[in-house]
Amino acid sequence: MTSTVSAPAVTPAATGPARALVCRGCGTEFPLAAQHACYECFGPLEVAYDPAALARVTRAEIEAGPQNIWRYAGLLPAGQDPATRVSLDPGLTPLISAPALAAAIGLDAPLWVKDDSANPTHSFKDRVVSVALTAARGLGFTRFACASTGNLANSVAAHAARAGVPSIVFIPGDLEQGKIITTAVYGGDLVAIDGSYDDVNRLCSELVETDEFEDTAFVNVNVRPYYAEGSKTLGYEVAEQLGWRIPAQVVIPMASGELLTKIDKAFTELVEIGLVEAPAGGWKVFGAQSAGCNPIATALHGGTDQITPVKPTGIAKSLNIGDPAAGAYAIEAVQRTGGWMDYADDDEIRAAIRLLARTTGVFAETAGGVTVAVLQKLVAAGKLDPTQETVVFNTGEGLKTLDAVAGLVGPTHRIKPSLRGARDAGLLG
Amino acid sequence: MTSTVSAPAVTPAATGPARALVCRGCGTEFPLAAQHACYECFGPLEVAYDPAALARVTRAEIEAGPQNIWRYAGLLPAGQDPATRVSLDPGLTPLISAPALAAAIGLDAPLWVKDDSANPTHSFKDRVVSVALTAARGLGFTRFACASTGNLANSVAAHAARAGVPSIVFIPGDLEQGKIITTAVYGGDLVAIDGSYDDVNRLCSELVETDEFEDTAFVNVNVRPYYAEGSKTLGYEVAEQLGWRIPAQVVIPMASGELLTKIDKAFTELVEIGLVEAPAGGWKVFGAQSAGCNPIATALHGGTDQITPVKPTGIAKSLNIGDPAAGAYAIEAVQRTGGWMDYADDDEIRAAIRLLARTTGVFAETAGGVTVAVLQKLVAAGKLDPTQETVVFNTGEGLKTLDAVAGLVGPTHRIKPSLRGARDAGLLG
Repeated sequence: MTSTVSAPAVTPAATGPARALVCRGCGTEFPLAAQHACYECFGPLEVAYDPAALARVTRAEIEAGPQNIWRYAGLLPAGQDPATRVSLDPGLTPLISAPALAAAIGLDAPLWVKDDSANPTHSFKDRVVSVALTAARGLGFTRFACASTGNLANSVAAHAARAGVPSIVFIPGDLEQGKIITTAVYGGDLVAIDGSYDDVNRLCSELVETDEFEDTAFVNVNVRPYYAEGSKTLGYEVAEQLGWRIPAQVVIPMASGELLTKIDKAFTELVEIGLVEAPAGGWKVFGAQSAGCNPIATALHGGTDQITPVKPTGIAKSLNIGDPAAGAYAIEAVQRTGGWMDYADDDEIRAAIRLLARTTGVFAETAGGVTVAVLQKLVAAGKLDPTQETVVFNTGEGLKTLDAVAGLVGPTHRIKPSLRGARDAGLLG
Repeated sequence: MTSTVSAPAVTPAATGPARALVCRGCGTEFPLAAQHACYECFGPLEVAYDPAALARVTRAEIEAGPQNIWRYAGLLPAGQDPATRVSLDPGLTPLISAPALAAAIGLDAPLWVKDDSANPTHSFKDRVVSVALTAARGLGFTRFACASTGNLANSVAAHAARAGVPSIVFIPGDLEQGKIITTAVYGGDLVAIDGSYDDVNRLCSELVETDEFEDTAFVNVNVRPYYAEGSKTLGYEVAEQLGWRIPAQVVIPMASGELLTKIDKAFTELVEIGLVEAPAGGWKVFGAQSAGCNPIATALHGGTDQITPVKPTGIAKSLNIGDPAAGAYAIEAVQRTGGWMDYADDDEIRAAIRLLARTTGVFAETAGGVTVAVLQKLVAAGKLDPTQETVVFNTGEGLKTLDAVAGLVGPTHRIKPSLRGARDAGLLG
């Protein structure tokens, strides 16, 4: 080798549109590295794109792409070259027409359920993990990690197993046995911590600074800006599945609040680059929380964007982030678009899980119950227009939170194994 | 109305290729009605097709179709007109390259996992239920039913909920609470019977003959010939996903044995109608059972196609059919193609679930463990050629059989929530 050797040719198709990391607080820009907070103001960083690169993406190119999130690679910060992807290939989950649900809750316009329980590990987390780990491998990380109480742990461990990369997942020590199994089965390291989820998170923030973890990508810590971008694919898919249209109203569950901001960002991008026309009246973004963890909705209701952290309670555990990092940004998106937020208590969540299942055949985890319950409340309160097309997001799978409806549903009849038994139970008229 | 009125125009696209029901025993033909046994010899009936109609189907037509089983509507007995479909739109589940699994079990050629846990209710049953209920509605049935201990019950109840059609599902009364919830949540009638699965089946065979159930389609009884055809879509998909090729070897779990015969039938049809060339050495079909319910494999090993029924035991409950209706046909397919059958005990099943998860990121239910364990045994015994491309089928989801691996997997470390705790556990070198 000599110093006159040419620079390696860059395949245009493999060059991404991401340009920099930019601070959401002060606007300072940083190179596309493993960094999640601003060195100037400690604000959170977000991926910024080259508008010209985004504008080169066409509907035809997307439609000719794979049947998963990577059809939108031209709008993502990583994974343009298929060979670089660390992925279970999530996405293109069903957008289900829900006329019976609409009728049950008093909506006259089309209602759709975007069902992300269809992803490989059955939650929307597969989207963000695929983008985060693809970016992480590109940045040179050789081990994958996260702090989680459920869906994220499943997804990181499964992605690492498929990719043949070591993983280390941190969980609270008192996690339910079922949730431990669905991560441990993939064979990575699984560290149970004698403490709460907040303790787990704090420890991960310390570990990420140690020499021993310098090769480790914590998906929701040191590669968080890339991770968050994966949620945009939910917005792209809804628009494409509606025939390149943005619905008038969307109802989205909130934990950190980031999912809501990224779906709104996806719609904004699609309009800006000319792939979709904005609907006549714009689109309205609605946020859903549980009564046991409602700091974002409470702030909005109080007329402020200052989030007061809470100690989460209640059955919607996958949404239980008491100090939501993107809460203020979620409030901004909801206010800018003319939407609203509300929250539902555990009984309302349980009832909504059953309503959704009975009217659509979709069995949602508690987070899906939160969102459907809040949709009902928004309609009842006149906050959501029942004459406008609406999309409600189910982000997870009912099989993961069976306890939520145990005791509420069961056999409708118990009979002896005979025609006489059937007759006695009224099954034969 | 007069007698001179023209016959209604038939839309060609909505006309199916099915021609008749034909007895697998004596060959007698019957019209396409709700009938599952031959009036002459009591043999099982199968759907027969018009070869010219099948031959009109093209690759281009399939590839332009929806991303689910209905892209193969031209090869199915129902659902040609989208408006007639009773469906959660299952299918086009991932065909996953599994090099690490291949290496672990000594295969040198490409190995693929066809992962049907990606279906809407997370088992391959969504395929057969979609075809059965679409045919059933076309035949005038107004209520959907089945006897089941799990996956089939989930699927029928969810399909009925989506379609807004009443359902009635019959289950053994001692079923696990989790499996009851995942059917009951969809809100149909759920009848718990004080008896075994055999008792449940027997009662359903009696109920189907009563006046009160004359409007009720039992998917695996009176519309069984249509139901069984849904499994062909697994074979079509594998061939299409391989770029219109049939793999040299396939390993398939067996309960009734019907899934195996229908995948073989799908390959045969694709070759006959010219959509795919047969591989040079043909394809070999391998069947997998559990040691707790192995009547088909035992018959083959004994050199007979006479199945001796067994009383099933063991953890692979979704495969536990002690008197398998299609056992002799499965043996015929395996012998004709030069394949083999074997069975795995519960410990081997559990180990195979873990191996599959660790090497592919796919968490299978016990049936998937059976199939991977049998694949290993077939390689070790020299029955399956390690130098030939192989596809192994996972038909269900690990979340539904968590108990199988509970106690075998868990945290690898338990620590205090501090850097010191991490150091004491060896996580910091």
